[in-house]
Amino acid sequence: MTLAPLTLQQLNDAPSEQALAMVDGLYEHSPWIAKQALASRPFRSLAHFKHCMSTVLREASREQQLALVRAHPELAGKAMRENALTAESANEQNKAGLTQCTRDELARIAQLNAAYAQRFGHPFVLAVRGPRGDGLSKQEILATFERRLHNHPEVELQENLRNIHRVVELRLNDKFGITPALGNQVWDWQEQLSQFSDPGYAEKGQLTVTYLTDAHRACAAQIASRMRECGFDQVEIDAVGNVVGRYHALQPGARSLMTGSHYDTVRNGGKYDGRLGIFVPMACVREFHRAQIRLPFAIEVIGFAEEEGQRYKATFLGSGALIGDFRAQWLTQQDADGITMQQAMEHAGLRVPDIAKLQRDPANYLGFVEVHIEQGPVLSELDLPLAVVTSINGSVRYQVEIVGTACHAGTTPMDRRSDAAAGAAEVILAVEQRAMQDADSVATVGQLTVPSGSVNVVPGRCQLSLDMRAPTDAQRDALERDLLAALQAICERRQLRYTLEETMRAAAAPSATVWQARWEHAVQALGVPLHRMPSGAGHDAMKLHQVMPQAMLFVRGQNAGISHNPLESTTSDDMELAVHAFSNLLRETAADL
Amino acid sequence: MTLAPLTLQQLNDAPSEQALAMVDGLYEHSPWIAKQALASRPFRSLAHFKHCMSTVLREASREQQLALVRAHPELAGKAMRENALTAESANEQNKAGLTQCTRDELARIAQLNAAYAQRFGHPFVLAVRGPRGDGLSKQEILATFERRLHNHPEVELQENLRNIHRVVELRLNDKFGITPALGNQVWDWQEQLSQFSDPGYAEKGQLTVTYLTDAHRACAAQIASRMRECGFDQVEIDAVGNVVGRYHALQPGARSLMTGSHYDTVRNGGKYDGRLGIFVPMACVREFHRAQIRLPFAIEVIGFAEEEGQRYKATFLGSGALIGDFRAQWLTQQDADGITMQQAMEHAGLRVPDIAKLQRDPANYLGFVEVHIEQGPVLSELDLPLAVVTSINGSVRYQVEIVGTACHAGTTPMDRRSDAAAGAAEVILAVEQRAMQDADSVATVGQLTVPSGSVNVVPGRCQLSLDMRAPTDAQRDALERDLLAALQAICERRQLRYTLEETMRAAAAPSATVWQARWEHAVQALGVPLHRMPSGAGHDAMKLHQVMPQAMLFVRGQNAGISHNPLESTTSDDMELAVHAFSNLLRETAADL
Repeated sequence: MTLAPLTLQQLNDAPSEQALAMVDGLYEHSPWIAKQALASRPFRSLAHFKHCMSTVLREASREQQLALVRAHPELAGKAMRENALTAESANEQNKAGLTQCTRDELARIAQLNAAYAQRFGHPFVLAVRGPRGDGLSKQEILATFERRLHNHPEVELQENLRNIHRVVELRLNDKFGITPALGNQVWDWQEQLSQFSDPGYAEKGQLTVTYLTDAHRACAAQIASRMRECGFDQVEIDAVGNVVGRYHALQPGARSLMTGSHYDTVRNGGKYDGRLGIFVPMACVREFHRAQIRLPFAIEVIGFAEEEGQRYKATFLGSGALIGDFRAQWLTQQDADGITMQQAMEHAGLRVPDIAKLQRDPANYLGFVEVHIEQGPVLSELDLPLAVVTSINGSVRYQVEIVGTACHAGTTPMDRRSDAAAGAAEVILAVEQRAMQDADSVATVGQLTVPSGSVNVVPGRCQLSLDMRAPTDAQRDALERDLLAALQAICERRQLRYTLEETMRAAAAPSATVWQARWEHAVQALGVPLHRMPSGAGHDAMKLHQVMPQAMLFVRGQNAGISHNPLESTTSDDMELAVHAFSNLLRETAADL
Repeated sequence: MTLAPLTLQQLNDAPSEQALAMVDGLYEHSPWIAKQALASRPFRSLAHFKHCMSTVLREASREQQLALVRAHPELAGKAMRENALTAESANEQNKAGLTQCTRDELARIAQLNAAYAQRFGHPFVLAVRGPRGDGLSKQEILATFERRLHNHPEVELQENLRNIHRVVELRLNDKFGITPALGNQVWDWQEQLSQFSDPGYAEKGQLTVTYLTDAHRACAAQIASRMRECGFDQVEIDAVGNVVGRYHALQPGARSLMTGSHYDTVRNGGKYDGRLGIFVPMACVREFHRAQIRLPFAIEVIGFAEEEGQRYKATFLGSGALIGDFRAQWLTQQDADGITMQQAMEHAGLRVPDIAKLQRDPANYLGFVEVHIEQGPVLSELDLPLAVVTSINGSVRYQVEIVGTACHAGTTPMDRRSDAAAGAAEVILAVEQRAMQDADSVATVGQLTVPSGSVNVVPGRCQLSLDMRAPTDAQRDALERDLLAALQAICERRQLRYTLEETMRAAAAPSATVWQARWEHAVQALGVPLHRMPSGAGHDAMKLHQVMPQAMLFVRGQNAGISHNPLESTTSDDMELAVHAFSNLLRETAADL
């Protein structure tokens, strides 16, 4: 029996009991979650409803959360063969192809289930239909199971709850007859683009696309081709390899809104970092073109050729070229094979003399907006699909060496030591505590080593890196001042010396008020709770910030927001919301002109 | 005019004013130090008087200490050329050959003086007559100056005060007409033995003597030859390379007192670690032999062939063989050049089948005593030449890996991190604080690293070593229990995992009461304040402890007690006291029988 799809209107209008019946079976044996969430009706969107349910669960007791997790069957294996699965769960596991397991695979799953139950005391829950809703492969499921077996119990409990919410999201789509068509399109474009990878990585199934390799040029060609299919009026690959698509305004001579992000990747990176910010606006332009809509401004979507600085140390080359910040000394830099950038450009058919012409006149632009995967855990933990960026953080980095007195670990009493590692330990905790005091500051000791340390020698030296970031330069400077003072005080008290080397300093790029407000309205119009946050990572918008107003939109990452990693992921549902948000932004901008 | 040497009796008997005149000029422009110390008359020895003066200075105000340091002239250089030095100081600097400086050397000294004055605000003080009283070389002086320029100001102030005390010690020797002849003999033996060093180190002027190398066998031959010169009745090199000298008892069949230490070294080690414990008893036997004295027990002095486990992993091989703990699997171990221990033994003419015969019958022995350089800073800081060891600490070692979640240092808020290095930092401070609570416990994190750490990645892993030691097994076990609990609690709170691998566990070896008491009486008879302390390092006495009573005597190290390092040093004055203490121990033992 197939029911007719529900509508949000029906859900909002129904009496309580009836509404509850409509959404029966969303959470395994736990109708109380939907029941409490329904008290927040009317919902402005399904995303709004989902968020209300995840809030109910987050605010529930630990016992209630665990009971929900425990209500789930084990993955495939014994329970499945005995037909003990709920019908719904079995259906979902079938979609993931788990019924096609070999005897060895079933044995492996049974092993994993047993190990997992012993470690965590509850079953492993995975949204086996995956980020696009059409099923993870058996290999992906097994790899995820093995990886999560090593999680901390608290981390793993939260991961289970997020997977449960994802299952609910897919069940809701089914109930409401919704397919995120635009999100699926963006998802598929990214999947297709990820077929190209540099030699040495492609063979291992890893994604690596560095500046001007064959894979990189194939990406540019595919993006350009997709742009033409979308109905862009002009598409070109510029003198540094950026793919530039222009969708004309209603009137010639109108100003343009620039948007986009990069299509190069780090080594063994993810499919969404950068690329999402090219495809989301492309999907919007496609819809405008299909509907024959022209806006009072042009849209310039750019796939920046080089942001990650992997093959050459030329981070932000693509966006830099547009603001006149292409550096001549880059051309003579050699890659690991001794090929200079100039040679690579010539091989790619790029005209170096034309690079200077790429510089844009800001007078012709309304501003720059960029969509990007968050690359962090915030939205995942808040169970929110989108966030509006308030500022790209300013940063400063140091290399620190603390020097004490190396001495015998057995013969030197505790009160007669100048232990460089103990000093470093105090610094690390001071870094953590001080950064924690600020909203939105972060500070990290990422590198830490006692050079040639021995088990029986009190450390005479300890080297560490110090990375500090904050949404404004003033906040970063205060953080830096306090931490350098703490370093000095700790070393002074412990009779240690230290050396400091500043290795990087970048100014903060606060979002332009008007553009940030437009993103905020665009998100709120979707019925999704508004979350504002700084960007801890650098983005192409930092470069454009130097010549025009800019603001960014973040999209939630799966797997606790991991990035620069093959596990980087977003769902097509979130991408769908990003396309709608972008579209809202364009309409509001048009209305403001 | 040369004055007749003073005697301690004269100093003890003189009226205050006259006594003060007798010891005029000991401390630069600071008669108040000797004056206050004289209130403690009568002195039982010169060492007692010296200690009283150093106590006065230690208890003086910081201002008084600094004033004393500032009363010293700069090293050589300008002051010297202008004849502005005190006569005494100039005399001492002349002995060190500083008058023979080239123009370049003088320029270098002037540079160092200026840099030092700028950093510390007072002149550099060095007892340029050195540990044997006959002068450091210019190279040694310059190297020390350069090294100390990097000290922490507080550490350097204390180093200056210790050097001032050493200058006073030498001035007192001169005033009292004392030459530490036995100490000088022991000092010279060690200097002569240090001419032998393994290939690759000898060329660089570094001391490295590892098991059964040519240098090692030359050492054995030289020790054996010196033993014969001293008048030992039997001298042999045994089946594992130990040099064994026996000085017979008054009556045949009497039991023996065993003593000795090792003559192998660590790589680029010091001249005194181990060897001091061979030469001090040899000097005693030489004196007994000269005086034709026989004791009611025999003395067996052993130079152990292998204690450091450098060429082969066979720590304590030499002393182990005497208690039946020679391990057959050692014979097939290969050194870095692929030479097995068996091959090395055959090459050295050692008879492997005879090794089993080396095992001693404890019934034939009174016990084992060992003299050793402290290898730590305690005696140096207390300004005491000797200490009696209460126990060789029990120890346990672990390798720890803390595992968190690697994530982006820019995008991961402080409150959403599982930072393995921050967890390690808390562990390091907990280790430090817990060990500090116990008398005589020590605990050390000597190895510390974030594997493949990046400046912009929150550490997902951090590896560290943990070394814990205490004078009794119970105290060590409590320390271990508390620290492992702290590790667990810290990781639990921070949502980190960890792995633990125990890599070493050794039982404590408390000193035998009767032998410890004999050492205590022996030290007190010298008029030197008694200090008891545990040994944090392992020694050959640990092995003999398993079959017979044992107790150890420590001798102060210079340079803050640094060991396993070319800077390891002791003075011939301290060695002289060690020989006297050993002689006292022998006499008391004889009296007790």
